[in-house]
Amino acid sequence: MNAFNVSEHMQTLGLQAKAAAFLMARADAATKNIALKALARRLREAGPVLAVANQKDLERATAAGLSAPMVDRLKLMPKVIETVALGCEQLAGMADVIGEIIGMKQQPSGIRVGQMRVPIGVFGMIYESRPNVTIEAASLAIKSGNAAILRGGSEAIESNKALALLVSEALAEAGLPVEAVQLVQTTDREAVGQLIAMPEFVDVIIPRGGKGLIERISRDAKVPVIKHLDGNCHVYVDDTAEFDMALRIVDNAKTQKYSPCNAAEGLLVSASVADDFLPEIAAIFAAKGVEMRCDPVAAAILRADEALDPKARVVDAVESDWSEEYLAAVISIKVVAGVDEAIAHINRYSSHHTDAIVTRDHVHAQRFLREVDSASVMVNASTRFADGFEFGLGAEIGISTDKFHARGPVGIEGLTSLKYVVLGQGEVRT
Amino acid sequence: MNAFNVSEHMQTLGLQAKAAAFLMARADAATKNIALKALARRLREAGPVLAVANQKDLERATAAGLSAPMVDRLKLMPKVIETVALGCEQLAGMADVIGEIIGMKQQPSGIRVGQMRVPIGVFGMIYESRPNVTIEAASLAIKSGNAAILRGGSEAIESNKALALLVSEALAEAGLPVEAVQLVQTTDREAVGQLIAMPEFVDVIIPRGGKGLIERISRDAKVPVIKHLDGNCHVYVDDTAEFDMALRIVDNAKTQKYSPCNAAEGLLVSASVADDFLPEIAAIFAAKGVEMRCDPVAAAILRADEALDPKARVVDAVESDWSEEYLAAVISIKVVAGVDEAIAHINRYSSHHTDAIVTRDHVHAQRFLREVDSASVMVNASTRFADGFEFGLGAEIGISTDKFHARGPVGIEGLTSLKYVVLGQGEVRT
Repeated sequence: MNAFNVSEHMQTLGLQAKAAAFLMARADAATKNIALKALARRLREAGPVLAVANQKDLERATAAGLSAPMVDRLKLMPKVIETVALGCEQLAGMADVIGEIIGMKQQPSGIRVGQMRVPIGVFGMIYESRPNVTIEAASLAIKSGNAAILRGGSEAIESNKALALLVSEALAEAGLPVEAVQLVQTTDREAVGQLIAMPEFVDVIIPRGGKGLIERISRDAKVPVIKHLDGNCHVYVDDTAEFDMALRIVDNAKTQKYSPCNAAEGLLVSASVADDFLPEIAAIFAAKGVEMRCDPVAAAILRADEALDPKARVVDAVESDWSEEYLAAVISIKVVAGVDEAIAHINRYSSHHTDAIVTRDHVHAQRFLREVDSASVMVNASTRFADGFEFGLGAEIGISTDKFHARGPVGIEGLTSLKYVVLGQGEVRT
Repeated sequence: MNAFNVSEHMQTLGLQAKAAAFLMARADAATKNIALKALARRLREAGPVLAVANQKDLERATAAGLSAPMVDRLKLMPKVIETVALGCEQLAGMADVIGEIIGMKQQPSGIRVGQMRVPIGVFGMIYESRPNVTIEAASLAIKSGNAAILRGGSEAIESNKALALLVSEALAEAGLPVEAVQLVQTTDREAVGQLIAMPEFVDVIIPRGGKGLIERISRDAKVPVIKHLDGNCHVYVDDTAEFDMALRIVDNAKTQKYSPCNAAEGLLVSASVADDFLPEIAAIFAAKGVEMRCDPVAAAILRADEALDPKARVVDAVESDWSEEYLAAVISIKVVAGVDEAIAHINRYSSHHTDAIVTRDHVHAQRFLREVDSASVMVNASTRFADGFEFGLGAEIGISTDKFHARGPVGIEGLTSLKYVVLGQGEVRT
């Protein structure tokens, strides 16, 4: 496909999305739920068709020499299909927030003023590898009354096309416009450049993928971007932390899974408990093969610990360790004077994603909650909870590390906007 | 000041603002209110000092040949000073929204999840002429716990410097960082370019001024912009509108003041009532000298009206009239088939600022509220009410015609962000 055609294709998608968005915004809750349930049914019925499409992607990926984990992420296993089908049914079961009116109050002039929740309009989603994201984005678009233009990874194009066809069929079955969810039909990279530069058609871009991709999109986009950069999350163990709880939380936050953005990458320990706490957590990390990048104080405590497991890997941290998102069996460890230094360290080095304190001290807990400038701040809970499902949002289109519009896990409300509604009885301004 | 110094100055302001923002976010409500009341007092005491500074601006403006209305807007009359002083006191009297926690609910895992309202951080404000905006922006920054960098118009630099000094003194009196509100000290235009391109220091830019300025800033900014472009507002007179109410609302929306962005620029009338309604509203417009740019049907009705005031100016509308923000004694008039065509016309041509329907029909009212894609949608009220004070926000930093983050009049909440707070008892993810 040459550049001219890509541009034409994107303009067509944009125009159609804009028109569909108006109809989606008007659609009633029952109709949208019919589409979601139809999509779930069609996903379950389409197993063989999806397997054929997916097989093409897998063969191409293997031939192109993609790494085994990359190929794995491409696989549309029956279990993955069942999970997204269940997700559609869960969304269908949720209350519809579109049209809700909040804060309606009468003003001195006599008018009543409130805010109505409405869809944002059209969102563009740019993602890589995992084809199930196609269904997650489509189902969230349907429930939230938005239109979506989806640009999946070129490596998953056949799977995504097959999935997008099911979405179109489900929309048609419910009497909704099939253009409400459209997949970009070309793998030409120019399509991404077009998608992020159509403010006349697209209201917001949601990229999911590597940091480089997201930085590039944020830099070049002509519309707002709901973006998620690093997840450099911390757990701070305060003076009064209960050791059992602190060990459980730090262990879970670091080792339950290494790859998620909400896994802890940094451990801060108050000096008053470091001598006792560090050897205990180091024993756990040693057993699990977690490398510890320590500041001089923490390193000295651990190296002086004669009982330390010989497998423990204690390494001297360098400045860049405090900013690093390892996504691996590595953690940075620093001894701090107390809650003040912990808050200052986190506000300086964290990626403003998720940070937790373990404490019994009410004042420290309150200060940590208020002063740590992160999308999710936690007391006595694992950072691994920072997730749309765990937060009760029902679904998640992404996690925002920005402060503007949506912050933290982004669910349906993050895809909506509040407009003012005014009800009068003929009032005029004097 | 050469380019190197401008850059250095802006970097310094940015660094200081960032540091001050952390302290402002921590500041308690009482302390911020002390600063606001001190500012009100100092404004009232500073009359003579402000007059001297303002005189310098006025002399320079007159010498430079600025138009009389421009010079007028520069004037810091005692009445203007009293108004902004009162505004500070009103803000001090309002409840503080920083730190409020909403929606706290327990999740199946046991953790409780809610959202805490926190300041955005640092906002940059770019504005022209009227020096009272300096105080409005400063007082909103203080109340909302943000830091602000203010860049006023070069024509008002002396007045703005005198006002900014009062703000610093009030902050110091309350024990708050004086760098919480900083005025850019140079009139070099390069400072604007720097201010909008410091994502490491500035979280959001709020421009107030002409459309050209705002478009330029939106295009070049490296951070989010809360922007307000046109106010092409409409009133639609529905089949069942009460004529007295419709006349009062259309008259008020168009003629109470011509210059505000929430004044009506377009009148839509349902065909079923156009024959009767148009001559009546035309009589009012004729008496007030409002030019009517009419579609062929409306023009024919008015030209066939033998009782029409000979002063009435009925002009044939051209396509561009439907998109125009006149800000003058001109209105476009179109006869539409009914509520469907009215909604379609508004969604196509309005600037998504404020649009109103006059009707007794409940279904039409509901459809208009839901389907008109504007920041403020009204039933039986004048578009002139679209204003932070009239909406009960207490104050207004601007009006947003975007859908992202804040929409419509932007008060203190528009300068805040919601972060997730999680309270646990040691829960970990399984």
